[in-house]
Amino acid sequence: MTRRLGYLGPAGSNTELAALKHDGRALLLPFGSNRAVAGAVDAGTTDEGVVPIENSLQGAVTDTVDMLIHDYDLLIRHEIILPIEHLLMARAGTDLDDVEVVFSHPQALGQCRVFLAERLPGAELVASLSTSASVEDMQQSDRTAAAIATSRAAELYRAEVIAEDIQDNPNNTTRFVVLAAADHRPTGRDKTSICFDFSEDAPGQLFSVLEEFAKRRINLTKIESRPTRQDLGRYIFLVDLEGHRGDNEISAALEAVRRHVSMFKILGSYPVGAP
Amino acid sequence: MTRRLGYLGPAGSNTELAALKHDGRALLLPFGSNRAVAGAVDAGTTDEGVVPIENSLQGAVTDTVDMLIHDYDLLIRHEIILPIEHLLMARAGTDLDDVEVVFSHPQALGQCRVFLAERLPGAELVASLSTSASVEDMQQSDRTAAAIATSRAAELYRAEVIAEDIQDNPNNTTRFVVLAAADHRPTGRDKTSICFDFSEDAPGQLFSVLEEFAKRRINLTKIESRPTRQDLGRYIFLVDLEGHRGDNEISAALEAVRRHVSMFKILGSYPVGAP
Repeated sequence: MTRRLGYLGPAGSNTELAALKHDGRALLLPFGSNRAVAGAVDAGTTDEGVVPIENSLQGAVTDTVDMLIHDYDLLIRHEIILPIEHLLMARAGTDLDDVEVVFSHPQALGQCRVFLAERLPGAELVASLSTSASVEDMQQSDRTAAAIATSRAAELYRAEVIAEDIQDNPNNTTRFVVLAAADHRPTGRDKTSICFDFSEDAPGQLFSVLEEFAKRRINLTKIESRPTRQDLGRYIFLVDLEGHRGDNEISAALEAVRRHVSMFKILGSYPVGAP
Repeated sequence: MTRRLGYLGPAGSNTELAALKHDGRALLLPFGSNRAVAGAVDAGTTDEGVVPIENSLQGAVTDTVDMLIHDYDLLIRHEIILPIEHLLMARAGTDLDDVEVVFSHPQALGQCRVFLAERLPGAELVASLSTSASVEDMQQSDRTAAAIATSRAAELYRAEVIAEDIQDNPNNTTRFVVLAAADHRPTGRDKTSICFDFSEDAPGQLFSVLEEFAKRRINLTKIESRPTRQDLGRYIFLVDLEGHRGDNEISAALEAVRRHVSMFKILGSYPVGAP
């Protein structure tokens, strides 16, 4: 049976590109928010769901991270690493120099600041709900408009690309995760994501957790903190580490960590993604 | 001479409230972005600048954090802890039930989701550049509009408050920092902020840094990671710790940390702020 794969839509978004990279034969179902994608997996409406979790320039997608911590018990089954390329597109025959208004998601506008300042210093920048929605906004505008979106959005919405590769920083990569009811079996080259917090504030608590990994020579690929939403200065920590939760050393470390912390949640073990 | 204090404007913003809390007699100068506030301090146009750095619900203000890491060598001289209260305001005589459109900064709209869904389910939500700008947007709208902003904005722009305390979560607190050319002398109850990264990825690097603090019983109040903007998976760490960089133990720990890391920057020592 064809796999049903939810993603942060609409069609033409970078998340759709990530979903296609993950499984080009799946039935792709667009949803309006990261939360709706997770909800569909949770309800069994889709088998898996693809959401962005981290960008090399902007950092964590906090909406996704907070949702995994607080709202769902879904597991990460895969990660997908996708280089992000922004293109400027417009209605057929539009000249770059005539563009009066540029639509895009604020993050994309922010990632193309240098291009916009140098080539379109007089253009008004208008926020759209997503890069692909910005192509529709552009097509419905009564001014000479352009949109910043993906090559796939240009194709789907039949827009004409008028400038390529317009992002300020070439090292623009987004990491997506595939959420499912179960995580992945061990493959020999895996990562595990966990989160935890502490019931009270005492010196060295985080240190005692990291010590459990360090003494077993387990490499941490990421550590970040998110607010507990209760008190300023109280945090939930997210850690990504190399290895599968089924590995002996990892499993022993996680058991030991559990004894140091208050809340503890395994977010999943999954194969390391390749760019 | 009166102190010149830059802040993220316009007048009526939460940052203005924080600036007033910090020094009610200073000459307050509004700027259009966190970056412009820092630039003014850097250029000596203002003595100090107030910018938000962290919210108890949303986490780090990444724009501020990244600016301190990458773009300026300013120091944190104070922190200001401010409880955030959102009010709904409109033109005089507006009835809550008639409101068709609500303007505010997207963060404020996001923090009042429950109120908006329950009391104004049909209203369109429109993003403004700041909460205070949303009051102007509301006043210039040709529809029956409301804005979510501070009590001070209602006062300054003579808007009528039509609902108070509309935020979903009562634990909504923002931490601001006061930037200056020099940080604060020791007061006996201080914090120090630092950031650092590693030149290569090896197991236990962060652990070896935290060990320097743990073995000296230095309490870390915060640890977070930001992207280096070079590679996905390479991070800059920000650590807040209890104590002043002039204290013997702290100073020894910082010297030891310096030997473990590649980039190292002291962001300042300053008195612990009170809510």
